[in-house]
Amino acid sequence: MAQVEALAGGGTTNEFDRDTAVTPRPGEPGSFDAVLSAGWTIIAAVNGGYLLAVLGRALREALPHPDPLTITAHYLTASQPGPAVIRTQTVRAGRTMSTGQASLFQTGEDGREVERIRVIAGYGDLDALPDEVRTSALPPAMPSYADCVSSADAPAGGPVEGSTAILDRLDLRLDPATAAWAIGMPSGSGQMRGWLGLADGRDHDVMSLLLAVDALPPTAFDLGLKGWTPTLELTVHLRAKPAPGPLRVSLTTRNLAGGLLEEDCELWDSADRLVAQSRQLARAPRG
Amino acid sequence: MAQVEALAGGGTTNEFDRDTAVTPRPGEPGSFDAVLSAGWTIIAAVNGGYLLAVLGRALREALPHPDPLTITAHYLTASQPGPAVIRTQTVRAGRTMSTGQASLFQTGEDGREVERIRVIAGYGDLDALPDEVRTSALPPAMPSYADCVSSADAPAGGPVEGSTAILDRLDLRLDPATAAWAIGMPSGSGQMRGWLGLADGRDHDVMSLLLAVDALPPTAFDLGLKGWTPTLELTVHLRAKPAPGPLRVSLTTRNLAGGLLEEDCELWDSADRLVAQSRQLARAPRG
Repeated sequence: MAQVEALAGGGTTNEFDRDTAVTPRPGEPGSFDAVLSAGWTIIAAVNGGYLLAVLGRALREALPHPDPLTITAHYLTASQPGPAVIRTQTVRAGRTMSTGQASLFQTGEDGREVERIRVIAGYGDLDALPDEVRTSALPPAMPSYADCVSSADAPAGGPVEGSTAILDRLDLRLDPATAAWAIGMPSGSGQMRGWLGLADGRDHDVMSLLLAVDALPPTAFDLGLKGWTPTLELTVHLRAKPAPGPLRVSLTTRNLAGGLLEEDCELWDSADRLVAQSRQLARAPRG
Repeated sequence: MAQVEALAGGGTTNEFDRDTAVTPRPGEPGSFDAVLSAGWTIIAAVNGGYLLAVLGRALREALPHPDPLTITAHYLTASQPGPAVIRTQTVRAGRTMSTGQASLFQTGEDGREVERIRVIAGYGDLDALPDEVRTSALPPAMPSYADCVSSADAPAGGPVEGSTAILDRLDLRLDPATAAWAIGMPSGSGQMRGWLGLADGRDHDVMSLLLAVDALPPTAFDLGLKGWTPTLELTVHLRAKPAPGPLRVSLTTRNLAGGLLEEDCELWDSADRLVAQSRQLARAPRG
């Protein structure tokens, strides 16, 4: 465990670093062991953003550059809390950017390895990028942190049945305009907005942005649908390191059709910088 | 050649099907030969959307489902016109969806294979999806096809230096509001809109949508930048088969920062259906 904690950065014991830690597997270069924590489950599944962060940390160890500039995950089978192995491949190592691939496997009941997730990513060094910012996007209009609704105040009997463990790890406050689904009054606009920190006070960094893009309730709830909204594919562009403090997270769905929907996410930091953009393709709930 | 034309579909000889044809390599299951055509080059490069369509056709042959619902390409090294081999892998074959991976290689001057592009994709059957459409997105507001500007009418001396061969394959008409960069008056809004057909009259299908998301001039031109805007990563969600007729294509950039920019693309068909959404991460031109 000492090794795991050292990898997690200076002996910190915050929940996110501890639960996304990866350990090089002796004798297997590019392979890493991890333990998926039950603390990041929602309904019946391990959260997809948390899983992406575990894979992101393995690729950070394997590649010559530290930061995922663009990372795409395909969710193949349902991950379970418990041991996992991540196998990475360096596809190309360039001067300013490297490309890597990683797969997360777990051992099934029959003793055979099952691939859970496959990721391909381009890594670079965010600190080495030019300073110029010409962003025309504007931060989401939403009430202050104090005027948003804490998930701890949510009434029972919402559309979520099953684990809500991840909510204990998050400091999540939803914009009331996108939270009324919890009392049976979805707005129908397909939006979700909120402030997002980590419950133990750890500030965001590049790896926790991978969690943040998939940490809010699905926009499907705001469309009046209930139940599990499994992510098929998730692509995140990380564009800057976040300033300290909670993020403003904005999710939008504009194309619910054919039983599928996209979820576009923007993450804005306390310095009004658009630090990440993501899009996922998900299967719409049946409800 | 007879085999290639047969694969291209019923002996058709339209340019797109001919130039994206793939031929199974004898004795190497899952491997396909292709010839990248110089007819789809722009500036000094083979167009990234055309390349994605070549890979998309190889995965269609290799996987049990016909349509790429979500496909992500990482552009590793610059493709050249000429022979290429595509090697595919079936990652997972499910009932309604399968996941595949493919890499396109070319042989370098030293006789060694160089990987040009790596793709991961989820394939399904668009015809088998439920009919329900609850899209809240609206088609882009733009003038009629007749009132847009044909690329054949573009003045010389624009920001493009080098090949414009791809323009001879396309029936592209830009919204005048996003075309003034061609006369040195970029709007600065980071948008590009136009009508897009194929010059030989072939109607769009699923595979040509992969071309269409990367076929317009880059939004960087509308931001006043000049030169090559190389795509690092491109993800396309295909949501419906297109109705006949030219597509309306809308490109938007909202986050030019750190020398990188995103390009969001929507494709709308003649039946006002949002048939594809894509996002790419590209390197901003130096100009």
